[in-house]
Amino acid sequence: MRQITAQDLEYLSVGAAILGAGGGGDPFIGKLMAQRAIEEQGPVTLLDPDDLEDDALVLPSAMMGAPTVTLEKIPEGLEIVRAFRAEEHHLGMKVTATSPIECGGINSQIPFLLAAHARIPVVDGDGMGRAFPELQMETFHVYGLSGSPAVVADELGSIVTLETPNNHHLEWLARGVTIRMGGQSLLVDYPMSGADFKRTAVHRTISMGIKIGEAVTNAHANGQHPIDAICASTQDTIYGRGVVLFRGKIADVERRTREGFAFGRATLQGMGESQGSEMAIEFQNENLVAIKDGQVIASVPDIICLLDNEMATAITNERVRYGQRVVVVAIPTPEIMRTEAALEVWGPKAFGYDIPFTPLEKHFAEYYRRYGVLPDKEKYLQG
Amino acid sequence: MRQITAQDLEYLSVGAAILGAGGGGDPFIGKLMAQRAIEEQGPVTLLDPDDLEDDALVLPSAMMGAPTVTLEKIPEGLEIVRAFRAEEHHLGMKVTATSPIECGGINSQIPFLLAAHARIPVVDGDGMGRAFPELQMETFHVYGLSGSPAVVADELGSIVTLETPNNHHLEWLARGVTIRMGGQSLLVDYPMSGADFKRTAVHRTISMGIKIGEAVTNAHANGQHPIDAICASTQDTIYGRGVVLFRGKIADVERRTREGFAFGRATLQGMGESQGSEMAIEFQNENLVAIKDGQVIASVPDIICLLDNEMATAITNERVRYGQRVVVVAIPTPEIMRTEAALEVWGPKAFGYDIPFTPLEKHFAEYYRRYGVLPDKEKYLQG
Repeated sequence: MRQITAQDLEYLSVGAAILGAGGGGDPFIGKLMAQRAIEEQGPVTLLDPDDLEDDALVLPSAMMGAPTVTLEKIPEGLEIVRAFRAEEHHLGMKVTATSPIECGGINSQIPFLLAAHARIPVVDGDGMGRAFPELQMETFHVYGLSGSPAVVADELGSIVTLETPNNHHLEWLARGVTIRMGGQSLLVDYPMSGADFKRTAVHRTISMGIKIGEAVTNAHANGQHPIDAICASTQDTIYGRGVVLFRGKIADVERRTREGFAFGRATLQGMGESQGSEMAIEFQNENLVAIKDGQVIASVPDIICLLDNEMATAITNERVRYGQRVVVVAIPTPEIMRTEAALEVWGPKAFGYDIPFTPLEKHFAEYYRRYGVLPDKEKYLQG
Repeated sequence: MRQITAQDLEYLSVGAAILGAGGGGDPFIGKLMAQRAIEEQGPVTLLDPDDLEDDALVLPSAMMGAPTVTLEKIPEGLEIVRAFRAEEHHLGMKVTATSPIECGGINSQIPFLLAAHARIPVVDGDGMGRAFPELQMETFHVYGLSGSPAVVADELGSIVTLETPNNHHLEWLARGVTIRMGGQSLLVDYPMSGADFKRTAVHRTISMGIKIGEAVTNAHANGQHPIDAICASTQDTIYGRGVVLFRGKIADVERRTREGFAFGRATLQGMGESQGSEMAIEFQNENLVAIKDGQVIASVPDIICLLDNEMATAITNERVRYGQRVVVVAIPTPEIMRTEAALEVWGPKAFGYDIPFTPLEKHFAEYYRRYGVLPDKEKYLQG
């Protein structure tokens, strides 16, 4: 248990942008909103999953929509509080904690905005260990929980409560509402017990986001290159160390907002150690695959992130521009996100790619042998 | 107060198809569902608005979507009951009566299906005195009531509760959900007191629908032509007598389902007394304007209906086919539907036509002088 400060949210916004995998929405606006809420309402407690009571009622919170929209349509600020109250009204119960649905991007911050106003703690864990574009792409779904009742709210005061026996249908309906709300909404879903949260969530992803952000921010002071600091910062977590995939400049970006999602493809020309090579990154809100000279070398659910060459800040897809100098870094995901059930929901096939998921540790076995991995990942280093 | 029988629903399905103005959905499926519900659950009471308690809680019920969809996607049957229960849960109150939102088409029947299962009466009146395509096109909206909270339900067991301060936004959001439910949903909206119902509803439209149906069905036995029987059957109601606009055959139909609505245009070639003339009927779910040789001679909110030349049964737009012999009949609407506030919501301009609304009694002043009109319509016969 710890009190979250404005400085923690600052670090978190840096770390969560990296875990956003190119999507998740720029955390900047969310950070400002959460910081102001804490300033006005007092500090928020970050609760370790081990400290969560089994009979707690946890209600995850998030923003929904295409990150391209958030750039132009700033939330009013209390949508998420209205959604939260509507869910309590619907359930006829008091919610005792919130958590992120996704620890990547702006959605790392939204729970703190809600928690400050509702005066409840945020549990340190989330439903995808990164950012993903759809509501059923959550460990909560993968491990058997219902997303319903969910509530989405808009800045006009509209509140829509959705209940459906099928989480894919929930995504479909909530997306439809979000599109008609202007492409963006605030959302609560997957109400669950503390015991269910502990069983299904990816643990301690918020404190990891803060840790990554702190490492990048203080890298120069610590005599480290910030890219190295990022790669090292996840070394001893359930994720494992990050790896540099490519260095180059943006030669082309295609991007279109369709059906409530930001789809697209960035093409990079190699520079430095990647000179002579080309990389393509394809995304649906988040980066899905990194293709080097025609070969997929990283894919969902592993995290693929474009970082600014100088500052090592994450560049979200709606901000990628021709000519930018970037480093592409990938971070392996925890084993709870790589089970057969999980890959069915968010492996490459779930996004229409006819390829199997190959973990980063296997693609870069030599690198990981050198730096070491946690015991549950050693299987990838064989052969 | 009267008990509604299976025979009444039979008559109602005939009369309501005419009040559907080409839309409202074919009542056939709704009639079968309502008849079965009455058979299983017992008879339903039709309550005169004068007998409704001021502090009653009335919850109108309907089907939402493009009538073209209902032809292929048959409701499961209990969607409307789930929507009703969800609204009661949301309000934390028992609903004491339902009513139609629209007395035209399939939506004349849905309240009887619900009422049989929920064991409540149906109030004899509705929110548009005909059929219209959108949720804010209701006298309930025109005269100041909120459509929220509304609930839409689908055959998969999904239930979506919508609350918004703006009835146009309610239409927009509920339409979005309905589209994602496959183009059709079951709906409750505009929960209101008995006093509000009496003030804002179009009164006794269900008993009028039954009366029209009875007149057509028994016309031959009564030695009347069924078209004449239809025109005469509304003579002494708040509507006034129907008038024959055109006789001819269908020369062309354009029809497309877009944004959850059925849009289109039927072209008719004159026969008999209309020989040498042409008529075009344009619709959005319901018929909007009748254009004879380039001149608009009838428009919303007056009711324009295509009837089969032989049987005088109404032909809904999704069933209009090349070569059909038809009679076009129009029925004037009550004054509560023609106020300035009402015409702003459903006059020709609300559907994109840059023409003022001209009442049928004015277009056909000689005809109405001959047959007489109620006192509140005499102003149209001047000059």
